[in-house]
Amino acid sequence: MLVIHDCDTLRKWARAWKTSGRLVGFVPTMGALHEGHLALIRRARRECERVIVSIFVNPLQFGPGEDYARYPRPFEKDRALCEKEGVDLLYHGQVEDFYPSDFRTTVSVRELTEVLCGPHRPGHFDGVCTVVTKLLLRTMPDIAYFGRKDYQQAVVVRRMVRDLDIPCEIRLVDTVRDSDGLALSSRNAYLSGEERKAALCLWKGLSRAHSLYKAGERRVGELRSACLRVIEGEPKAKLQYADIVDPQTLRPYRDEEILQGPAVFAVAAFVGTTRLIDNILLA
Amino acid sequence: MLVIHDCDTLRKWARAWKTSGRLVGFVPTMGALHEGHLALIRRARRECERVIVSIFVNPLQFGPGEDYARYPRPFEKDRALCEKEGVDLLYHGQVEDFYPSDFRTTVSVRELTEVLCGPHRPGHFDGVCTVVTKLLLRTMPDIAYFGRKDYQQAVVVRRMVRDLDIPCEIRLVDTVRDSDGLALSSRNAYLSGEERKAALCLWKGLSRAHSLYKAGERRVGELRSACLRVIEGEPKAKLQYADIVDPQTLRPYRDEEILQGPAVFAVAAFVGTTRLIDNILLA
Repeated sequence: MLVIHDCDTLRKWARAWKTSGRLVGFVPTMGALHEGHLALIRRARRECERVIVSIFVNPLQFGPGEDYARYPRPFEKDRALCEKEGVDLLYHGQVEDFYPSDFRTTVSVRELTEVLCGPHRPGHFDGVCTVVTKLLLRTMPDIAYFGRKDYQQAVVVRRMVRDLDIPCEIRLVDTVRDSDGLALSSRNAYLSGEERKAALCLWKGLSRAHSLYKAGERRVGELRSACLRVIEGEPKAKLQYADIVDPQTLRPYRDEEILQGPAVFAVAAFVGTTRLIDNILLA
Repeated sequence: MLVIHDCDTLRKWARAWKTSGRLVGFVPTMGALHEGHLALIRRARRECERVIVSIFVNPLQFGPGEDYARYPRPFEKDRALCEKEGVDLLYHGQVEDFYPSDFRTTVSVRELTEVLCGPHRPGHFDGVCTVVTKLLLRTMPDIAYFGRKDYQQAVVVRRMVRDLDIPCEIRLVDTVRDSDGLALSSRNAYLSGEERKAALCLWKGLSRAHSLYKAGERRVGELRSACLRVIEGEPKAKLQYADIVDPQTLRPYRDEEILQGPAVFAVAAFVGTTRLIDNILLA
């Protein structure tokens, strides 16, 4: 496995593979790899001839009070995992190489970023869009893989890629969960034992709504209430939002509405000082 | 010469040239081609194996009160000119194909767009950056050519291309002028005979400052005053700005400052209802 730290060498390899007609798959990550990332990598490995993984904790997508400094960076462990999964190239980007002091450009997507996590994390999606544009244009993959756990991110990135004509297909990979249902996240590492138990309320709330949906409930207010009762019943959790949205436009349905087609139920909550998100498809 | 109206066919050709290792040059235009554009095309023709020209009047870069609707669109004449210059592919983009109804993405560059034309044309450079990103990612050229007449645009685009890692080199081509010195612009077509004469004050003002500079004058206030006197002496012209700026950062020098290195003197003025710009290098 190639381990590359600078953009020029990365480009050289990416270009060589492109020129020789290899199908290139790309998995952008912030490292601290878990089974969710590995599912992305394995899917890329199955579907592509060359697999590039990037590890870059992107400062642009963290707000002032957020966890940029303490975000886990277990590089040697990540590297071993990539090696084991048969990754061809691991790109470990450096902040100075991404953002020189006179860096001034922003890529932003309107509307899709103004709901769900958007209002709670000002600037977050601009940071995501800007770095993903850079990563895609540095690696020039045929296919890039994103997790459904960060559903809004995936929808925003897909729109951005289409709008800017970035020649790459975006594929979504299902969320990987612990045996009890908790969605895997690098941020789960922040949770104490008690918090870990409390964190399960997100999934329990979503599951409750999903059961009602399966039983025929289509009233948005009823579905949301069922989830809210679970999360608000957990004293260690502080809900940020619990919204049922259109899968493409992310427009939140109002409580008075009746679902006519598929929808995504997305939630965010703090457990202690750790912010967690999760979502489920209602279809 | 290939004349292509849709993005898929454009990409097919661009990709084929890329794959076969041809050096591809690209000249993005809004049409109404004049000798300034032809200078860009001829430079591309000399330096590259394949030359792509685009003609697209980009609605995003026009403000509400601006001349989008009346901007000249003499397509058949432009097409003949491209043919005559040996252009390989003329891409005539369509608005619906650039901006579907759910288009929501913007590329923007801070600071460089907050001076000179920026404050007078809100949203203009966002529109330029967004469409240039799209055009570059649709055509994937090795080199793209921009005119020095739109100096701020060229500097903004060059920074954006570097910041977003768009794999393309930006080359600047000198301004082409009428025999009396007026910078060629598609908007000159709007000028009446009287206005055409009045329009020359931009170049006369810049030339006056340039002469002083050549004679050793380095005081910003003196250089600006010399230019201002000429432009403000023309009753048909209404000055918008006349700023001496750093060639890279576009930071305007204050009147009290003394030039230590090269600088660009840039002016904008209305002549009748027509907005004109020009600039000159002080070096």
